[in-house]
Parts: sequence; C-alpha cells; structure tokens
Amino acid sequence: MTIPSPSPSVPAPSREAARAAESRQRILTKPAGALGRLESASVWMAAVQDTCPPHPFTAPRLVIFAGDHGIARASGTSAYPPEVTAQMVANFVSGGAAANVLARQFHAHVRVVDVSVDAEPDYLDEQDPRVAAHRIRRGSGAIDREDAMTLAECEAALDLGARIAGEEIEAGADVLIAGDMGIGNTAAAAAIIALLTDSDPHQITGRGTGVDDATLARKRAAVAAAVARASADANDVARLLARISSPDIAAMVGFLSGAARRSTPVILDGVVSCAAALAAGRLAPGASEWWCAGHLSAEPAAHVALIHLGLRPLIDLDLRLGEGTGALLALPLLAGAAATLAEMATFESAGVTDREH
Amino acid sequence: MTIPSPSPSVPAPSREAARAAESRQRILTKPAGALGRLESASVWMAAVQDTCPPHPFTAPRLVIFAGDHGIARASGTSAYPPEVTAQMVANFVSGGAAANVLARQFHAHVRVVDVSVDAEPDYLDEQDPRVAAHRIRRGSGAIDREDAMTLAECEAALDLGARIAGEEIEAGADVLIAGDMGIGNTAAAAAIIALLTDSDPHQITGRGTGVDDATLARKRAAVAAAVARASADANDVARLLARISSPDIAAMVGFLSGAARRSTPVILDGVVSCAAALAAGRLAPGASEWWCAGHLSAEPAAHVALIHLGLRPLIDLDLRLGEGTGALLALPLLAGAAATLAEMATFESAGVTDREH
Repeated sequence: MTIPSPSPSVPAPSREAARAAESRQRILTKPAGALGRLESASVWMAAVQDTCPPHPFTAPRLVIFAGDHGIARASGTSAYPPEVTAQMVANFVSGGAAANVLARQFHAHVRVVDVSVDAEPDYLDEQDPRVAAHRIRRGSGAIDREDAMTLAECEAALDLGARIAGEEIEAGADVLIAGDMGIGNTAAAAAIIALLTDSDPHQITGRGTGVDDATLARKRAAVAAAVARASADANDVARLLARISSPDIAAMVGFLSGAARRSTPVILDGVVSCAAALAAGRLAPGASEWWCAGHLSAEPAAHVALIHLGLRPLIDLDLRLGEGTGALLALPLLAGAAATLAEMATFESAGVTDREH
Repeated sequence: MTIPSPSPSVPAPSREAARAAESRQRILTKPAGALGRLESASVWMAAVQDTCPPHPFTAPRLVIFAGDHGIARASGTSAYPPEVTAQMVANFVSGGAAANVLARQFHAHVRVVDVSVDAEPDYLDEQDPRVAAHRIRRGSGAIDREDAMTLAECEAALDLGARIAGEEIEAGADVLIAGDMGIGNTAAAAAIIALLTDSDPHQITGRGTGVDDATLARKRAAVAAAVARASADANDVARLLARISSPDIAAMVGFLSGAARRSTPVILDGVVSCAAALAAGRLAPGASEWWCAGHLSAEPAAHVALIHLGLRPLIDLDLRLGEGTGALLALPLLAGAAATLAEMATFESAGVTDREH
C-alpha cells in the first residue's frame, strides 16, 4: 500500500500554447473578447493539450465513484434510503442513469467503481464483476461521531483513485470526469469544503437530493459536528479525509491529483467533485491548472469551493444530481471553444477590416 | 406587398405534451428537480414538438439577417467601420465566421440574407447571388435624426422575414435560429428594447463590439434621441420599426412571428434577436411560448428584454457577438434535456427505491 503523496509533482500546462491561443483569439473575425468565456476556455484547452489551436476532446472518460455514507443511515441526512446507492450502481451498469444518457449524447465513456457501497458483494449479479473488484470497505463511519475509515483505508482509496486515473489515461482518455454516487455524500462534501475553506458549515450545507427543513437542520448539525471532529487536521489531508470524507471521495481525490500528475485535464462536476478537488489541490499543488469547472451545482458549498479553486463554471442550470452530469454538459461548450479558435477565418484571410487599435 | 399582421393567430404549444413531460420527469431515476433547468427545457421541447418524450432537434437552421445602420456612419456608434457588414456577409458565405464554425459543430444549416447591406449589389462576386436577391434597401436612416426606412419598406421587410421562415420550415427545419450581422445594430436594438420595456436608454445601452467610453457616450445619446423620436409609436409596432429599427431587424421580427404562426420553435440569440422578439411578441401575441432563450448577451438591454419576455437563458458566458452564436451553443444542452427525458430509466424499470412522498 503506497501513499500517492509526497509523489511526483504536478507539471505545469503549456504557457507557450496558452499565449499562442490568446494571440490567435485576437486575429479572428470577431471583436476581441466577443466570444466571452469560450475564449478563456480555448486558452485553457490549448495549455492542457500543449498545442494551439486545441482540438475538441475526442475521448472523454467519466469515472463514477460510488460509496455509502454512514452519516445518512445514522443521522438521516438524506431524502433517500441508503440502498439507493447500490441500486444506482446497477442503473449505471445497465445504462439508465442521467449520466449514461448524457455520456451517450456527448460521446463519453462511462465506468462506475464501487469503492465503498454498503451492499453484499454479489448485488450486481453477473452484470459486471469488475465494478466491485476494488472495494475498499462497506460504507463509511458516521462522520459526525466516528472516523469515516482508517488511515490505511484512506491511503488505499487515494491509491486506487490514482491507479484508476492511470488506467483511463492508458485507455486513451484525453479528458477525464469524476462523477459521484452515494446517498449521504453531499454532507461529507460540505464538511470537507467547510474545513478547507474555513467556512461556516451551517451556511454552506445544502439540501442535497432535496431534503425537507427538518432533515436539513439535522444535516447541518451533523456536518458541523464532523467539522468540529476534524478541526485539528486541516493541514494533514490524508488524516482529514480518513476522519470526515469516505473511501469513494478519497478515491476521487487520488483520481484528480493523479490525473494532474499525468498531465491530463479534468472537468469538475458538482459539490462532491469540488470537495475532492480542494483536497487534491492540497495534495498536489498546481493540480487546479489542469481542471475546468463544468458547472455550478445548486449546493452552496460548491460555489465556495470553486471560488477557493479560482475556477468559474461554464454551466449554471441549477443542476444538483452529481454523477458527472454537469461536467458532461460542458463537453460541447468546450468543443465549441476549441473549434472556433481552430476554424474561424482571420481578419487577414477573410479580408475583413479590423478596428483601429 | 402584405403586412403579416393582422394575420393568423399563434397556435399554443401542446399543454398535454408539456404535462406528460412534467409527469415523466418525476418518475425518472433522479431526485425530482435534480436536473434543474434541463427539466424545464425538456418540458418546453415536448410542448413545441407536441410529443412526449421530445427528441433532440435534428434539423436546426440558422438565418443571419444582415444590414447596415445609418446611425453607425452618421453618429460613429461602433468600434468598426460600416464596410465590415458586407465583409462579414462574404465571410458567412465562405464559412469562416464564428457562427459557421459553431453551426458545423452542432449540425445546423446556415443561411445569410442581405436585407439592407450598404454595399454595391455585386460585392459578393459569384459567391452566392441569392444572398442579396431580396435586399429591401441599402442601409438604413440614422435613427437618431430620421426614420430607418419607410413604412412600405418596413412592411416589405416583415413580409420577407415571414417568407424566409416559411422557406426554412419547408426545407425541413425543426427549430430555427435568427442571427444578426450589422455594424450599428446594437444601438437600434437598445432603442427598440428601451421603448418597448419603458427602460432608460442610457442605462441599457452597452458597448456592442467593444466601444470606448467616448463612443459609448455618443451611442447612448444617439439611442436616447432615437427613443424620443419614436415615443408616440410604442403601440404601433410597424411604425415603430420603420422609425427606429432597420430592414434587417424588421425582417427578423417577421421571421420570429412567422415561425410561431407556423408552430415552429425558435432559439433566441443575443440583444438584436431579443429586440426583434419583443416586437414580434407584440405583433403575434403568444409567440414567446415558441421561443427558448439560448443565452444571455453581455449587452444590458438583452437582460431587460428577456425579463419582459419571461424567458431565462440557458447559456451565460459573456458572449456579445450575435450571428446566432449564443443560440447555437444552446443546441447541445437542449439535446441533453430531450435525451435525458427520453432515455433515462424510471424508478420502476431500474428497481430503484423512490423517496417517500
């Protein structure tokens, strides 16, 4: 069992390609800046692809990290019963979830990994035995009162995530997405974000799947209790994750930091992926340069996390589903960003008069 | 020469299909509402397609209405010289503009119509003689001091736009987009929006292609003068358009109202298309039910217009280019909205436990 940190540092995306993209944006047949944030997205794509103009991503691969959260069962923080996590893993395997539909629409590959689902090992029947082959443990501890997992389990989960990133890159991914599935996971995400951004847990804890006022009050209290338990661990990411995250979130942290170490861009999704990104950025300084924020989740903690990461989301449509859905929706916008930079005529080639500078 | 109004009224989109879509959203394997505004978009698509579930649009057709604006030449309200309009028409014909690139990316057909470009009739050489075949006039009057066109020209432009909508629908369009090209057109759009929403022209006039402070001050004064000239005409749309719009914008008004009368959905683009939509909504009450707001332009008047139309934009990426670019970017999001409603498993089919209601 190895800890991915302290491990190879994160290479920087290409400054040269980024500068070339900025220059090229200025000679295309449009007023400077008129394509708005498509232009900055194209600069990011040039940098992470180390080429200008960049190309639309052609091999996006989504990995959905699934796990149960003891806090949901122990403190009733979700609108759905815990067995839904395992049922949804089966739904991903058979292609019926929102993430599957959007992945088909935007030509992304989907893999689901049972990191810590709280179900019998044979719950998937013969559907796909590899899904649960790497399970770290069944569920997680109720983080408002006990650790989510041992430090050794946390390190194994970090390592698993990095290994999965490597496998997806070797399978040809030119961009990765980390999706989440787990009843109770927005509570853990809120706790991590509160701790790493020094925010009030009550303020940033949202309704997740859509809990009522009474459940929200319980959830806020549980998140605040989790944050209090881990308050001394903000500077020891592995210990913090062992205390108040979960194996599926720790695996996502390893996936995000591992992808950056291997110079592979990632589109972040909702609040769980933002929480993992904050932790991954601590483990692997510079990793956030490899990330693009796909969307702004309706969960308040996601907004706080993205501000701390210095990332502006492309999509803002009140989504709060996770699974990678918001990141998948950003794919065609990134394709548009790359294609305009690559294919538009220049003032010179089209014989269009530029403004006087 | 005929005026499209008073003409056939606008049919209502299917309430039954909308209700069916709302019901279906509630049984899909996700928390109710978790797909956010994709869900309302899917309901709109069901209504305008009169079927549930709806399908992603497969034959989007963009028409770019091009025309020059006397106000740009007379009052210097743009950062670009007027000859850019004709040059950009040639750029659209040869496929090098941003709208062409995004249309290729999202499989939309592009047609450009020279409604009132201020150029010699042979400026396109042999590229495509049909582009200028319907030209109403060369340029428009400087609307801060004179009418944009005669009432007869305005009625001809309205009629032309409705005819073009009909041609595109007969060519197989299942959704239409109205794009704009015209140096000076954001000044006319701001004037129309100020008048039809009773807004302060100084407040809602923006920088268009990116004018400096001195030009912005001139532009605001010119827009305010135009609004003052037409202040008695707010309830006579054709006369208002003759006074302070332009033939290209009037054609867009005829296109938008004509599409609605023929039960064809439209994705609105930036501030010029929003100005045309406000006017079209007056000519054809109920038309806005056939429209979806593709994006929020950075021009302040666009925001005001969309609020008055009761439409929330899908994309908000600081675009300010027009041409239909913001509407084109909404196409894949609408495809995702339709596909999730059509293809996701239900709680029952996937064996997933729903929350207790």
